[in-house]
Amino acid sequence: MLTPRDLVGQRSETVRRSNLSAIVRELHLRGPRSRSELVARTGLTRSAIRGLIGELSAAGLVGETRNEPDGAPGRPSPLVHPNPGGAMVLAFEVKVDSLAAALVGFGGRVQALRRVDRPRAHLSLDEIVADLVALAVPLLRRADPETLVAVGVAVAGIVRRADGLVRMAPNLGWRDEPLGLRLAEALDVDVPVLVANEADLGGLAEHRRGAAARVDDVVYVTGEVGVGGSITVGGQALVGSAGYAAEIGHMAVNPSGSRCGCGSSGCWETEIGERAILLRAGRDPHGGREGIDELVAAVLAGEPAALRAIEEVATWLGIGLATLVNIFNPALVVLGGVFERIHPVVGRTVERTLADRSLPAARELVRIVPGTLGENGPIIGAAELAFEELLHDPAARIRPRALAAAGA
Amino acid sequence: MLTPRDLVGQRSETVRRSNLSAIVRELHLRGPRSRSELVARTGLTRSAIRGLIGELSAAGLVGETRNEPDGAPGRPSPLVHPNPGGAMVLAFEVKVDSLAAALVGFGGRVQALRRVDRPRAHLSLDEIVADLVALAVPLLRRADPETLVAVGVAVAGIVRRADGLVRMAPNLGWRDEPLGLRLAEALDVDVPVLVANEADLGGLAEHRRGAAARVDDVVYVTGEVGVGGSITVGGQALVGSAGYAAEIGHMAVNPSGSRCGCGSSGCWETEIGERAILLRAGRDPHGGREGIDELVAAVLAGEPAALRAIEEVATWLGIGLATLVNIFNPALVVLGGVFERIHPVVGRTVERTLADRSLPAARELVRIVPGTLGENGPIIGAAELAFEELLHDPAARIRPRALAAAGA
Repeated sequence: MLTPRDLVGQRSETVRRSNLSAIVRELHLRGPRSRSELVARTGLTRSAIRGLIGELSAAGLVGETRNEPDGAPGRPSPLVHPNPGGAMVLAFEVKVDSLAAALVGFGGRVQALRRVDRPRAHLSLDEIVADLVALAVPLLRRADPETLVAVGVAVAGIVRRADGLVRMAPNLGWRDEPLGLRLAEALDVDVPVLVANEADLGGLAEHRRGAAARVDDVVYVTGEVGVGGSITVGGQALVGSAGYAAEIGHMAVNPSGSRCGCGSSGCWETEIGERAILLRAGRDPHGGREGIDELVAAVLAGEPAALRAIEEVATWLGIGLATLVNIFNPALVVLGGVFERIHPVVGRTVERTLADRSLPAARELVRIVPGTLGENGPIIGAAELAFEELLHDPAARIRPRALAAAGA
Repeated sequence: MLTPRDLVGQRSETVRRSNLSAIVRELHLRGPRSRSELVARTGLTRSAIRGLIGELSAAGLVGETRNEPDGAPGRPSPLVHPNPGGAMVLAFEVKVDSLAAALVGFGGRVQALRRVDRPRAHLSLDEIVADLVALAVPLLRRADPETLVAVGVAVAGIVRRADGLVRMAPNLGWRDEPLGLRLAEALDVDVPVLVANEADLGGLAEHRRGAAARVDDVVYVTGEVGVGGSITVGGQALVGSAGYAAEIGHMAVNPSGSRCGCGSSGCWETEIGERAILLRAGRDPHGGREGIDELVAAVLAGEPAALRAIEEVATWLGIGLATLVNIFNPALVVLGGVFERIHPVVGRTVERTLADRSLPAARELVRIVPGTLGENGPIIGAAELAFEELLHDPAARIRPRALAAAGA
């Protein structure tokens, strides 16, 4: 057992760091907060909050403004707001049909975002990295290099998080490509480059800033050509023993189904992926986003082939969701990507299928909603991944700058 | 931020409780430990360990014996062992074809276990509770009522943990039956009665004392008539938003499959449950455990119908496991219940199916093994559930007794 003296010596620095982290996280995720609210949220004393805010302010991470009087007696508590220019991240997205880069400031403000279409051809790693760097150059010019915290990348593939190796990305035509390392070299920045699966990051974004904010048990389903997802269990992302978890597009749902890009057959992706949706409706399977939007319009116009096709898709969507509801007992299912776009025309059939096929105890508690972040979900998630470097231990970053600011 | 003085005042009692919990948990789960090992495992000082062991010893929870010399210089460190009579739990199991009760001592020692067969008929809650109490009476006579910590119950159904309500148990013919409350009344004991699903508890038992000990990411699949499981994610059981998670027997694997007891069709249970296994082999679907053992013998004897049937079962088992491996990326899959018994004759086909159908990144890391606890897994898990009351906060229990022992 630690003696009281040990507690004071060993723990006070740990406590200071964890308190700084709590405040920085609160401001980043929830936005401006009065000092009183920070006292209430963190359980720290007013004087402790004052000291920590002073450190964060000296490091340029936060500013304070006089708050509006709220009718309570006494002076209004100053409003602490995150300073977007005080810490920045660069975020990228490598999708099957587009590439994007964004500069995002502390507090989650997107300062700039550039997206370019790309052909659905298999491009080499070097080509993609060159395109990403070209997208990023004008963004980096807008940021003080000192404030760059990390780089986050969302990619449509299975990723080894430790080093950003893309293990398998059938829809990009990649296998074991060192995206993280190559991008770090090409960008020539002195911060970590963190790569993760786009569905994982889309789910993270909805959990932090979208439809699933403040919900602890969430199933997020997304896709374009491939189908993926992200599962939040008790507030934490499900990662598995090596970071490969949540590949829900490859649940085996149909023993007589068609061949899947993963090598198996009858995966959920083969029934509800974008190509499967378009094929069912007798449309060009490579019609992409536009093809889907046209199909939704045809459904709304009452075209029989489109109605039949979307009904089948909705049923398969409901069958897979029944499995996920039975396994995870989530409070919320969020539909992202192509499923967010078709939600208006599949919602009722999905609900009915779920009612027929999932266990009442779990089903009674779940709501199914479309995502709220649209196609930028994954890149917002990539920025959040990059901000984790700051949120986890802000003291590690701000100490040198705070000391410099204090003239030490 | 807590000031140093706050740390000393507010936290030292919290720290003491959490240290006691760490020691009690270590001794309960890992068995006898020398004081030196406890110092190493907990990071506490020798004098702190001495003080805490003194408290636990005064409360009758631990004993100390002289340790064998281990060749290291100096006196050997005393060996601290859990005292099974110092804290006891009563555990029950309500299965489709048997009922059981056990008295289990601190450290996990099963002091006595009684199991009786029951017909596969639907019995009322009152009949089952009466049978359980009859099983327990001779066990309770062996225990000092003062030492009883809690009662744990494993049941083949979906359970609301908060109050032990069995929401749905199709194979027992129950719906919304208050098993926990009724059993507490009938036993007339002054301790909590905790009820949980038998598959959850079978998984807990394998995780604590069986094939999955010290593995953090585990999928446990079990069944007799119904198929269930338990998932360990980062060392914690997956419970979901209301405790209904891990109903893996009700994954939708076959859209043209047969009707399931849950109201859906084509659930995994309808393809690999005990009745399905026996039916495939042209045997009496109600043959139960004996029927399965006869089938395994027939397979080993090379009987063609038995071989064909078991090959189909193994393929369906592999298909469902592929989904679970893709979703959870576990380090280990443990087969319990009927799957533990058929493992010798299905293992190879399961592995091959998994190789064909799961994603290489996740599959390369997983091992599939039979459970090691046999039919007593769930009741051992029920005992572990009951012991959580002690492990979580031993101080709450031992304070009054320690004070009494100290003559206060």
